[in-house]
Amino acid sequence: MTSNTSSETCPAEFVRLAEELAEASGGVIRRYFRQAVTVDDKADQSPVTVADKETEATLRRLLTERVPDHGVIGEEQATTNPDADYIWVLDPIDGTKRFITGNPLFGTLIALLYKGQPILGVIDMPMLGERWVGAKGRPTNFTDATGTREARTRPCRGLDQAALASTSPEMFEGGNEAAFERVRKATKLTQYGGDCFSYGLLASGFTDVVIEAGLGTYDYMALAAVIEGAGGIITDWDGKTLELDSDGRVIAAGDFACHAEALRHLSGE
Amino acid sequence: MTSNTSSETCPAEFVRLAEELAEASGGVIRRYFRQAVTVDDKADQSPVTVADKETEATLRRLLTERVPDHGVIGEEQATTNPDADYIWVLDPIDGTKRFITGNPLFGTLIALLYKGQPILGVIDMPMLGERWVGAKGRPTNFTDATGTREARTRPCRGLDQAALASTSPEMFEGGNEAAFERVRKATKLTQYGGDCFSYGLLASGFTDVVIEAGLGTYDYMALAAVIEGAGGIITDWDGKTLELDSDGRVIAAGDFACHAEALRHLSGE
Repeated sequence: MTSNTSSETCPAEFVRLAEELAEASGGVIRRYFRQAVTVDDKADQSPVTVADKETEATLRRLLTERVPDHGVIGEEQATTNPDADYIWVLDPIDGTKRFITGNPLFGTLIALLYKGQPILGVIDMPMLGERWVGAKGRPTNFTDATGTREARTRPCRGLDQAALASTSPEMFEGGNEAAFERVRKATKLTQYGGDCFSYGLLASGFTDVVIEAGLGTYDYMALAAVIEGAGGIITDWDGKTLELDSDGRVIAAGDFACHAEALRHLSGE
Repeated sequence: MTSNTSSETCPAEFVRLAEELAEASGGVIRRYFRQAVTVDDKADQSPVTVADKETEATLRRLLTERVPDHGVIGEEQATTNPDADYIWVLDPIDGTKRFITGNPLFGTLIALLYKGQPILGVIDMPMLGERWVGAKGRPTNFTDATGTREARTRPCRGLDQAALASTSPEMFEGGNEAAFERVRKATKLTQYGGDCFSYGLLASGFTDVVIEAGLGTYDYMALAAVIEGAGGIITDWDGKTLELDSDGRVIAAGDFACHAEALRHLSGE
């Protein structure tokens, strides 16, 4: 499969492939949800399930078959074709704690990078039947049982009007904790527990700011195209574009001024 | 409608009525979810939506029609028939933060008290299509799209093996924060953001312990029959049965020994 596009737009064939990958991962995951699964502990204590591994294997098989020259970075297996222009980044189950406790608020994250820059991102919620697909050069789409439509972030008059989301305050260690607290106290309401779903809700204009830390490449790469294609902004805590080697501190906002205001609180200015 | 049962079992007609109430509330709520709604701020800053008020009004109409001699305590309107033997306790939307941010993890809580003791509880998740119904004298039932089956809590070998859930660490003020932290550090994993759904997952054996504070009567009364009918235990932080005037600090566990162990950590013994 070849393409002659610039780095600024995502070829339509890859958007279709990403949707196909999400269908396939959802099929595997739905078979395992709320069933007895073997749970290992990884070094970092995050639970890894059989479903996680089988889902990644399924996605890798599809990618090898359809785009053998592309690279793949996944949480469960070693990277393949690391020097390819196109690299897929996979997180089969983002929100494993939720998965293993029978909570449907976990998602599958699929990103495509072109020369290191994310040009495509999918947030798929297999148990909710909801999916966000963002791709450079087109608006972010949201699909649920009622159909597909554009997702748009909402304006926010100021941080004191903002709904903030974050997976857990335990993400924040050392100085990050105080920085997050400064933003939290400046916002209207805070809720925890979202994992990738929070970013989807932000893309659809239901949440204003998401702040997290300690994320891996698998966690944040898919978010960029979704948020940006919906009119929002996502950066690291210094306001820089997310890269493969970003430090895992992420801030997304639906409104640029609100993002700037939150960044100032994070930095303590 | 009259009944000649003891306080120890819940009349089947009231279980059927509770299911009917949950159908009705879900019907109202599904019309409003992810739509633009007018949001007030109550004194405690929790968002109250039009859906919340309309749902309670719908439930009250049904109760007035079917059991006019029963009392009703609801979050939105004044208590009626406070001296009745049977009193319904309603929380139309538990998890309003989630509701207003487009997150489907909120529920409707319906309890029936007989002489002050909860004999029936419903946790209904209208957007997930999942419902737990617990009633004195019968096992707790769980219903989803695939049908209805008994919900059972799971055994837990010790707190260090336990999955802990809580809506937000911000629930815990003063000494409660340190108490919660002692338990949290003793458990295997913690997750935030569940509201009433955490108690349903505990009843179905997916979570081991739920600890919260600052709950209102509306929040906790429906939980008791669900948890107890599934084989679990729910008390205040002193290990006492939940009453109408409990202090809002709640601990539920699927395993009695695990409950006792968590209570010891809460008290700092």
